[in-house]
Amino acid sequence: MKSRLFTPGPTPVPEETLLELAKPVTYHRSAEAKAILAELTDGLKYVFQTTQPVYTLTCSGTGGMEAVVSSTLAAGEKAILCTAGRWGERWRGILKAFGVNIVAVEVPYGQAVTPEMLHQALAAHPDAKVVFSTLSETSTGVGHDIEAFGRIVATTDALLAVDAISGLGAMECRMDAWKLDLVVSGSQKALMLPPGLAYVAVSEKAWQKIDATPVRNFYFDLRRYRKSLAENDTPFTPANTLIKAQRASLQRIRAEGLENLWARHHRLAAACRAGVEAMGLKIFAQRPNNALTVIQVPPGLDGTATLKRLEKQYGYKLADGQDTLKGQIWRLSHMGYVDSFDVLGALAALELVLLESGMNLEPGAGVAAFQKALAAAR
Amino acid sequence: MKSRLFTPGPTPVPEETLLELAKPVTYHRSAEAKAILAELTDGLKYVFQTTQPVYTLTCSGTGGMEAVVSSTLAAGEKAILCTAGRWGERWRGILKAFGVNIVAVEVPYGQAVTPEMLHQALAAHPDAKVVFSTLSETSTGVGHDIEAFGRIVATTDALLAVDAISGLGAMECRMDAWKLDLVVSGSQKALMLPPGLAYVAVSEKAWQKIDATPVRNFYFDLRRYRKSLAENDTPFTPANTLIKAQRASLQRIRAEGLENLWARHHRLAAACRAGVEAMGLKIFAQRPNNALTVIQVPPGLDGTATLKRLEKQYGYKLADGQDTLKGQIWRLSHMGYVDSFDVLGALAALELVLLESGMNLEPGAGVAAFQKALAAAR
Repeated sequence: MKSRLFTPGPTPVPEETLLELAKPVTYHRSAEAKAILAELTDGLKYVFQTTQPVYTLTCSGTGGMEAVVSSTLAAGEKAILCTAGRWGERWRGILKAFGVNIVAVEVPYGQAVTPEMLHQALAAHPDAKVVFSTLSETSTGVGHDIEAFGRIVATTDALLAVDAISGLGAMECRMDAWKLDLVVSGSQKALMLPPGLAYVAVSEKAWQKIDATPVRNFYFDLRRYRKSLAENDTPFTPANTLIKAQRASLQRIRAEGLENLWARHHRLAAACRAGVEAMGLKIFAQRPNNALTVIQVPPGLDGTATLKRLEKQYGYKLADGQDTLKGQIWRLSHMGYVDSFDVLGALAALELVLLESGMNLEPGAGVAAFQKALAAAR
Repeated sequence: MKSRLFTPGPTPVPEETLLELAKPVTYHRSAEAKAILAELTDGLKYVFQTTQPVYTLTCSGTGGMEAVVSSTLAAGEKAILCTAGRWGERWRGILKAFGVNIVAVEVPYGQAVTPEMLHQALAAHPDAKVVFSTLSETSTGVGHDIEAFGRIVATTDALLAVDAISGLGAMECRMDAWKLDLVVSGSQKALMLPPGLAYVAVSEKAWQKIDATPVRNFYFDLRRYRKSLAENDTPFTPANTLIKAQRASLQRIRAEGLENLWARHHRLAAACRAGVEAMGLKIFAQRPNNALTVIQVPPGLDGTATLKRLEKQYGYKLADGQDTLKGQIWRLSHMGYVDSFDVLGALAALELVLLESGMNLEPGAGVAAFQKALAAAR
């Protein structure tokens, strides 16, 4: 049986990128290594849509988020946290560990924080130094209106920090044009690499705050990355085989073109939702994003057991809900190296498992609706 | 021309491990992933010679060091730092960032901190909470008598933290028998993997101190790793392709046997020093370790230019000295996936380059002495 990965990180990695990982290891402090890092940084600037340098950290996405928190905030300073799910809560966990005074703007899981809510919080807390937000809240499938957040925060002295770990590349996100100050991404999502690298971009406005903030740690102090990257270098031994492989995946993104990439994810996500709804299922996110489709488990069905059967019987690996959402939702990722025929297969497999579970649905309804939506979007 | 890597990290990676990296990416929160992590942890316990769990962090070795510092020490607490080179200074940088009160026990580069010096420092500073040390000081080639350090520190309330990043696997190090409290290693040295993973083991004595220390960060809080590993899991998305590949390299270590591995590195290091000395060159380290051989650049020779010529002409990549030692020393690693015939070739290439640089030496003297030492050690 074939195994197919549809989890919202890690995601499938292109074959030419995987082969790059199998090449002999090279030294990371050489002229060649510097040229490779420079090329990677250029590619990341394109994906982040920024003229600022993008820093490469060897860690998971959470490490990149910690770098943002610890570099910009002293203990006791105030921050506004927009949270709509587990990854918003990840910001909260880091903020707490660093003794930040948190003003939370919260919505129930499945909903999105609105620009209006953020506007009010900023008006009530003009002393907030940083606003924390999430582009793609992968735990619920919600996407935030980061463009609007950027417009609001830009009129204040506060910085806007965006967890774009799973969103970047899968949905429109323009760091400079949208006036985002700190953007974090990770390698194992739409950037089509195994886990192990996080990327952080910093605006000039953010650097002013960072330079006025006391040192709080070592490995995640962004100042060290700025100093090293000025010489196309990294402050600590990087996962350099991953860096070389990321270059290969970024070449694929460049060849497709970023706007085409966004449009492809948009079409795929819309068609996937159409397919899911044609199967009589409901979408969990009220403001769905294009990185993944989050499906409500229909009443009476054991969501966790169904996913296990789907994997065992048909080789399709989707992700369960996390924490309180376990068994309540199914998360189907379509970001990165995933095309419409891949998703078509996933919907077919899901349909078969639902039929076998005794659900009353018309065989083929899901795949036909998916295909119809795709054909209409051509 | 063939390229051959002799830098003290990254080191050559076995072919079967590289091929593991080229396999399709899988989900990191599955029963299979947990079984793989459990197997990795078991293998690491063997290499660390401990019954304690060994935590896998996605970061470079410095990240593992930061986890040790930040988890064990509150700001203002006192620590003794044994430093004999750049990697001792790395401890210092992290300790400073976390506001630790540092008592430094220093020796000039090329020398080793003696057990007697540590004994005196502990007697003078009975309030020191942690002693920081380095097994293999890769910047100078010095090895420390960590066994003796362990005997001394064990009689006190202080903890002994050991940077064994480049030493572990290349030289004898027995965490439990030597009473080491915190041992850090990294993937890209004798453990034969590309960079990207750090490993940290913690004694029960150390856990008592950690549990009494306030939270200082998030990603490197060792308590999070303890909690997750109790369920064979990681707190943050791990570099899971590296984890699978590390398992392959650890199988190679198990097959050889740890004591055989130490003995092989010991023979290889001794023979390498004999070869180097027979070429009329001097060893830089007064107490050399088995991970690498550090050679003094002979007077009148441009050390950096010679290394560049060696690489360009013969494909052998050795490492230059760092910081103030740049151009003063050559660092030839023989840890991990390196055998005697590899080192024989490196000595031959070095001899050729020295002859071409006009040095007065007998062609073949180095390789013959190397071979003689190896034959005698059989």
